[in-house]
This record gives sequence, C-alpha cells and structure tokens, in this order.
Amino acid sequence: MSRRLYECVPNYSEGRRKEVIDRIVAPFRSRPGVHLLDHLADADHNRLVVTLVGQAVPLQEALLESARAAISAIDLRVHQGAHPRIGAVDVIPFVPLRGVAMADAVSLARSFAERYACETCVPVYLYEEAALRPERRNLEAVRKGQFETLRREVSLPERAPDFGGPGLHPSAGATAIGARQFLIAFNINLDSADAGLARSIARTIRASSGGLPCVKAVGVALADRGLVQVSVNVTDYRVTSLHQVLQMVRAEAARAGARVVETEIYGLVPASALIQEAARDLQVAGFDEAQVLDLRLADLPDRNGECP
Amino acid sequence: MSRRLYECVPNYSEGRRKEVIDRIVAPFRSRPGVHLLDHLADADHNRLVVTLVGQAVPLQEALLESARAAISAIDLRVHQGAHPRIGAVDVIPFVPLRGVAMADAVSLARSFAERYACETCVPVYLYEEAALRPERRNLEAVRKGQFETLRREVSLPERAPDFGGPGLHPSAGATAIGARQFLIAFNINLDSADAGLARSIARTIRASSGGLPCVKAVGVALADRGLVQVSVNVTDYRVTSLHQVLQMVRAEAARAGARVVETEIYGLVPASALIQEAARDLQVAGFDEAQVLDLRLADLPDRNGECP
Repeated sequence: MSRRLYECVPNYSEGRRKEVIDRIVAPFRSRPGVHLLDHLADADHNRLVVTLVGQAVPLQEALLESARAAISAIDLRVHQGAHPRIGAVDVIPFVPLRGVAMADAVSLARSFAERYACETCVPVYLYEEAALRPERRNLEAVRKGQFETLRREVSLPERAPDFGGPGLHPSAGATAIGARQFLIAFNINLDSADAGLARSIARTIRASSGGLPCVKAVGVALADRGLVQVSVNVTDYRVTSLHQVLQMVRAEAARAGARVVETEIYGLVPASALIQEAARDLQVAGFDEAQVLDLRLADLPDRNGECP
Repeated sequence: MSRRLYECVPNYSEGRRKEVIDRIVAPFRSRPGVHLLDHLADADHNRLVVTLVGQAVPLQEALLESARAAISAIDLRVHQGAHPRIGAVDVIPFVPLRGVAMADAVSLARSFAERYACETCVPVYLYEEAALRPERRNLEAVRKGQFETLRREVSLPERAPDFGGPGLHPSAGATAIGARQFLIAFNINLDSADAGLARSIARTIRASSGGLPCVKAVGVALADRGLVQVSVNVTDYRVTSLHQVLQMVRAEAARAGARVVETEIYGLVPASALIQEAARDLQVAGFDEAQVLDLRLADLPDRNGECP
C-alpha cells in the first residue's frame, strides 16, 4: 500500500435498486490505488454508504465515474427516504489516513470539488474542515431543508453553491464535499427502558453542551432489546479516549441506578485507539507503537520481490 | 509485504566486537523479502540477538550468509560470556507470523537445518516444535553443559546431532535450530524489595509448576530501582492473555501487601494481543479484528500502481 492514503465515505441517495447500487459501486472495484472496504445500502433511508481507502489521484477518478452513474440513475424529484439529503451524490468526505495531514485532505476536497462541479454540472457545497464559509462547517446547515427547500433557496446569496450553479442540477441536486477527521462510532447500551436517561447522558457527555471534547452523542431506545443506547461519535480519540467516554457514561448511568451492559464499535477503528486503551489497562510504562508487530509490518518498505 | 511471513530471531555468540557484529547483520539489510526489525548486542552476555521478518526463501539465503560471517569470526574455544551457548551461531528459531502455520515453520526449520549443516559444516540440533527427539523440545536440554561439555559428550548417542557431525565444528561448535510460537515478554514490577516474593509469585503463575498455561516466569530484583520484577514470557496469548497474567500477579502481590507499580512489554507484541485486551476492557460485544483499520489496510492486495 502507498504511504499516502485517504479514507473516503461517499453517500448516495439510493438504497433500494440493486442494479443502480451495483453501477455506483463498480468503479471502486479492481482499480489500482483504490480499495472498497465496505458498502451498505439501507432501504428505509434509501441511502448507500461506501467506505473507500485510496490514493488521491485514482480515488478522484473512481469517484467521478461513480458519481456519473448515480447522477444518471437517481432523480431527487421522485426520491423518498428517511435520511436528509440534497443530492443523488449527497456527501463526499475525505479523511486523512496515512502519510497525509488534514491540510492535504482540505486541499484535495477543494480541488476535487471544483473539478466535480465542472464535469458533472452538479453544484458543490464545501463543508467541515474544507468549508470556505464558517457557517458551512456544519453539514446540517448545508443540508437545511433538504433538496426540496434548497432548490428554491439556492438563489439566495447565503445559499449559493461554492462551485457550479447558480441553480441546482434539476434531477441530481447538489453535493456536499468536505474533509474531516476519522470518526469512531461507539455505542454504549444501558440496562434501562428510559430513553430519557440515554438522551440526558448524551447531553452531559457531548462537546456541544460542554461535555467531553471531540464527542458527539445522542440517546436512543433499542425497543426490541428493552435497552437504551448512548450513540457516540468520537472525532479525535487522541483528545478523548473511548475509555474516558465509557467511564463518564458508567458514572452518569450509575447515578440513575443503571448499568452499562455492553458496547459496540460500529465500522472501522484505528488500531492505535485500541492499543492506547490496552496499554493503559495493562499499566504498561513507556509503550511505543513501534513495538506492535502488525503496525511494524505494515510500515515496512514494499521492496520485496514477492517470492511465490 | 508477502502473504507468507516468518519471524526469525537468530542469536550469535558475539556482543562486543562492533566490526564482527556489522558483518553478521549486513546480510539482513536491503535484501528483498527480508526485513531487519531490530538487533541488540549485549557485552556482558557477549551475545547478539537479531529480529527478522521475511519470506522463507530469501530469509534462508540471508541466514546462511550471516552464519558464514559469524562462523569465520567467532571462536568458541576462547569465547566468554554470561549467556549459555553451544555455538558461534547459537540458536535460530523460526516463528510462523502470517499466512503460515506452525507445521510450515517446523518444515522450514528442518529443511533449513539439513542444508545449514551441509553448507557450514556446523552440526545442528533441532529443538522445540521442530525437535525430532522429544527430549530436545526443551532448548536448555540441548544446551546442557554448553560448548565446553557438549564438545566432549557429542559422541554419546543421546547427544548426537540431528544433522552434520559426528563431532562439533572445532571453533564454531553447534547450532540449535527450531520452530516456536511468537513470544511476548511481559515484565511486572512490584513495590517490594523482597526478591523472594517475586520468585514465589513466578512459581505460582508459571505453567511448569501448575500455574497458567503458556506462561514462563522468573522473579528477579531490580536493585537500582528498589523494586522486584516478575519477568514473564507468554508463549500463546490466545490461551493466557496478558490481563490474566497481570490479574494473577496483582492478587498474589496483594496477599503479601505489595502492589504492581507498572509493567513493561519488551520487544514486539502482536496487535491482536492488545486489541483483545482493549475490547474486553471496553466491554465491546461482537468485536471483529476486520474492523481494525490498520490491520485491514495491511491485508489489502498490493495491486496499486503507486501513484506519486
């Protein structure tokens, strides 16, 4: 694998028609420099989430080819689904993964956005770290009112696209392209039937209401399991560790007489987030990640002649 | 990196002469398919420990070239050092690392041993998993009495080499070649000045005296730090986890009024040993190592055209 890698998690407004999903995903298969790690279509949300890892140049080519397939097949004017969306290709976030910094991801997102708007005729809003207007750092602000409202409001100066336009693409809407940190989805399940408790704990721990930095959280009921869940996104585990989140949830739950039954890590997690936890739990002094065999192997130069 | 990898940790009876050490290590540098992860020379022990990762074919070529350098430079008849040894090249263990099983490492050790004895005129004893005689599974049995005694006893049937011989190489002695599992060196430091306590805990936890399976342990004093240490080797962390070892040492220490101050992991540790600990500590249900980003990246096919 290359030394310079991005993660990219494009979301498409199609979770039902298998043949369309196949055409959208096809450009990510067997292309040198691009690896399809996962793709998940949800019929209720009518949405497809693709997880990619790759190098900047081939990743952009594959994204454009995939976007063309989505734009030609998805018509937002007749699209229905539970998830908020503004476009056939709804969001494309770039995440710095290895050998690249956030500044590189920002620069990639912006230059890709310009080319994307030009080649697809779909206007682009830049969001999070790549935002050109501070109010667009928040993706929800960009997607406010969804396709149906944005179609009318796009002519307002405060809703003008960053690239392309002036109007939306008639059937494919617009696309939000951004750069963000790698995100860990960490769900904590409590032995309680009180969704209010989960929501209250979520409010206590999340950064936006003065809790732990780099933590987003909501509380939900898991009705069929008779449990409630604090559903957490950790946007930088080096600032707030999973253990710190868990400890705070445990303490808050205990005050209400509830207990953490189990947790879930949804999707991918960087090895060092877990290694950090293990080293702390095992009281290891002076631990260096260079001691982790598998990370060491992954870092070796690819100069071997691959004997059979 | 290749899909089929071994670790190999050859030990040489030279820890003092820098130019000899350089000549022994040189064959492991910049050779396709072989990676020199570490090498550590100890003057008191008069011993050099090299940590390699590589593919079977180039690894064997490099080991032979390195052995020739050691055999021509080291004379056991005048060698002195604290560490037990039978040869200029003392031991060569092969460890299955990725895409290979213990049976492959055993087969590699045996076929390499035959070639090694033939090409270097140094006789070989096969040990641990590669042993051809059950009593030679234990390396200490093979090395009993060291070079000085073995030189006299080599003509006894029970001490005959497995390959080469009948006598030892006059100056380079013999080499023990084997196959074993990856080993984690885990040291646990206690706030006590009583080396007897550390020795007693070591006896309690080690497999050989009925303690935890896959655990070897000795107790030592760390005089200059005013602490004692239980020095542990875990030979299979999937059987006994580091956490289980630590919990048992904590409990035994507590009975004597002592406490674990810190631990050390010496050398390399497989990521999954730590990931297992973290998942347990964080109460993660149904965790799959395929979710660990870095392991996933390391497993991706090397089919990318390496864009600049």
